[in-house]
Amino acid sequence: MVQKSTSTAGLRGQVAGETALCTVGVSGSGLTYCGYDVADLAANATFEEVAFLLQHGELPSQSELDTFKQNLKQQRELPVALREILERIPKTAHPMDVMRTGCSALGVLQPEQSFAEQDEHIVNMLAKFPGIMNYWYHFHFSNKKIDTDSNADSIAEHFLTLLSQTKPSELHINAMQVSLILYAEHEFNASTFASRVAASTLTDIYSAVTGAIGTLRGPLHGGANEAAMALISSFTDPDDAEKGLMAMLAAKDKIMGFGHAVYRTSDPRSVVIQEWAKKISEEVGDTRLYDISERCEKVMWREKELFPNADFYHASAYHHMGIPTDLFTPIFVMSRVAGWTAHIKEQRANNRIIRPNADYIGEEPRKYQPISER
Amino acid sequence: MVQKSTSTAGLRGQVAGETALCTVGVSGSGLTYCGYDVADLAANATFEEVAFLLQHGELPSQSELDTFKQNLKQQRELPVALREILERIPKTAHPMDVMRTGCSALGVLQPEQSFAEQDEHIVNMLAKFPGIMNYWYHFHFSNKKIDTDSNADSIAEHFLTLLSQTKPSELHINAMQVSLILYAEHEFNASTFASRVAASTLTDIYSAVTGAIGTLRGPLHGGANEAAMALISSFTDPDDAEKGLMAMLAAKDKIMGFGHAVYRTSDPRSVVIQEWAKKISEEVGDTRLYDISERCEKVMWREKELFPNADFYHASAYHHMGIPTDLFTPIFVMSRVAGWTAHIKEQRANNRIIRPNADYIGEEPRKYQPISER
Repeated sequence: MVQKSTSTAGLRGQVAGETALCTVGVSGSGLTYCGYDVADLAANATFEEVAFLLQHGELPSQSELDTFKQNLKQQRELPVALREILERIPKTAHPMDVMRTGCSALGVLQPEQSFAEQDEHIVNMLAKFPGIMNYWYHFHFSNKKIDTDSNADSIAEHFLTLLSQTKPSELHINAMQVSLILYAEHEFNASTFASRVAASTLTDIYSAVTGAIGTLRGPLHGGANEAAMALISSFTDPDDAEKGLMAMLAAKDKIMGFGHAVYRTSDPRSVVIQEWAKKISEEVGDTRLYDISERCEKVMWREKELFPNADFYHASAYHHMGIPTDLFTPIFVMSRVAGWTAHIKEQRANNRIIRPNADYIGEEPRKYQPISER
Repeated sequence: MVQKSTSTAGLRGQVAGETALCTVGVSGSGLTYCGYDVADLAANATFEEVAFLLQHGELPSQSELDTFKQNLKQQRELPVALREILERIPKTAHPMDVMRTGCSALGVLQPEQSFAEQDEHIVNMLAKFPGIMNYWYHFHFSNKKIDTDSNADSIAEHFLTLLSQTKPSELHINAMQVSLILYAEHEFNASTFASRVAASTLTDIYSAVTGAIGTLRGPLHGGANEAAMALISSFTDPDDAEKGLMAMLAAKDKIMGFGHAVYRTSDPRSVVIQEWAKKISEEVGDTRLYDISERCEKVMWREKELFPNADFYHASAYHHMGIPTDLFTPIFVMSRVAGWTAHIKEQRANNRIIRPNADYIGEEPRKYQPISER
């Protein structure tokens, strides 16, 4: 029965379906959403416009955007049962486990009864995910049961408002807008592909997103921005970073935040977020982490021709925006849910259950033997 | 940018990886677990032996089985916080949403801290899933906070004991053993593949299983046994069934519980469970649903050369064992978790992140336009 494998590990290079949502490494800066270059969107659009674009294929008119934002604002309050569930998740929990459980619980309390409702439930998740994270966080870390409603104009401002419990600066709001835009969509990455596999059985949208959150949680996928933070904060200054990195390279340690499975010479998202990381560190008046990051970039390119990916400069930017490192990947969730749900809609619109084959490499046929004879 | 698609929808016929766990449609009756024919296992083994086989690649010795069963028994009690979370899931919830949320919550309360712990967490899920389902069920449907511990010797007996709150008959225990064996594993089906995609990011085991539950929830995957129950219980007797089916076929209605994506002439699991369905209906002294099922089989073969799949005869069997129809798919979860977790271990042991490509069928590159110009 043992056959020679004909599979390409990880489906690398194999086409698993069609999408109209995204190209990676094909045109422009290297990443497009529905035909728009991500750098163009990051420079000009808000996250709400981008989320609308992914959901509907076109940027919204002013009145469409107004309605979309109004709907988002109205859905920020968490149901009582969801708050009570979040209170039962311990302080020591992995924040991605909180997001996964919070999303699953939301789907059981406010279930998607038919696909005709899908857009409402997408709004529900976009609106409530910042509240889910922050309600649990403040319950344990500031002993407060916060109100997850706010008058914030955008998801970016809403998240920062709930986290800081004050009005955030325009600079921080704008940086968060850009960050959410950069993380919103990335073709058939593992978490998006997981959401499409789930959706292909015609399951509900919360099941598909819950699976995607659990997939993003893995250290090979989300989590690189947290790892980048751990890296840069382990160095005292740029010279120390250079020395440390050279030692790590000599020891063949894995260095997080550099290189990419698809991009070959640069990650278009890094160029964008680097500018914001610089602005934010200058505003704070503490450029140490930013200077360390720049030196890391220089050393990694000189030694390995590796470039920073989307996650690397996010680390110092988020840090100086007052965001605890553990919440970095949950922010990724609040953004990528726009992409996941767009892919779920696309899968539903032209569905066939995703059911590949496997190469069998196991035992030849054999007979059951009674336990006394084993 | 629009390219002609080269993809095979749903990865049908494409090899997505290797497995030593299962063959479908290759040898013996058509389904093997680690080389053993499923009919051989159903006739001779217990579900615990099969779960051990999938986890370790070999059937257990007596002392290995004793230890495995002892570990399972010791993990049946649910943590207080999990019970409190389950109490907050409404009575109207979809039981698969309860399983998905219960699994996710279990993973946040008792997290897998490293892969070295994986076998303990597999035992934890096998042991607690019957309790998760039954605790929620009895809380709402019999207004009782049940003790999820029991002295039952097996998972089959434990589930039936919690559900009926009495000692189940040997016939029912044995039928449930067989049912759990038949549902335990089935190669790269959609939920298993979803669990492997998640696992390929090196996420924790609860995330991967939570995603699999959400994937199984879809009507194209799990849920066919519930649909089969709806079908057979809509008929008054075999003649009515024949008349009804003929009308459904004429109207080109989809008839659940027949045919299979991989098997061509019969499903080896159906032959096995049919015998048990017959025994159980004879014991109950009510063979109406069984007789209706047989007639459906005859008509579907005569008219369409379609055969009953694993789910079809499960319907009358489960029904006469006193199992509410809504709990049919959750039983599938309690069994298939053995297969999912075996695949997760296999993926981890030889991992590459599962990240396929997509064919782009979207808009050509275009420029952002200010909202006032849209």
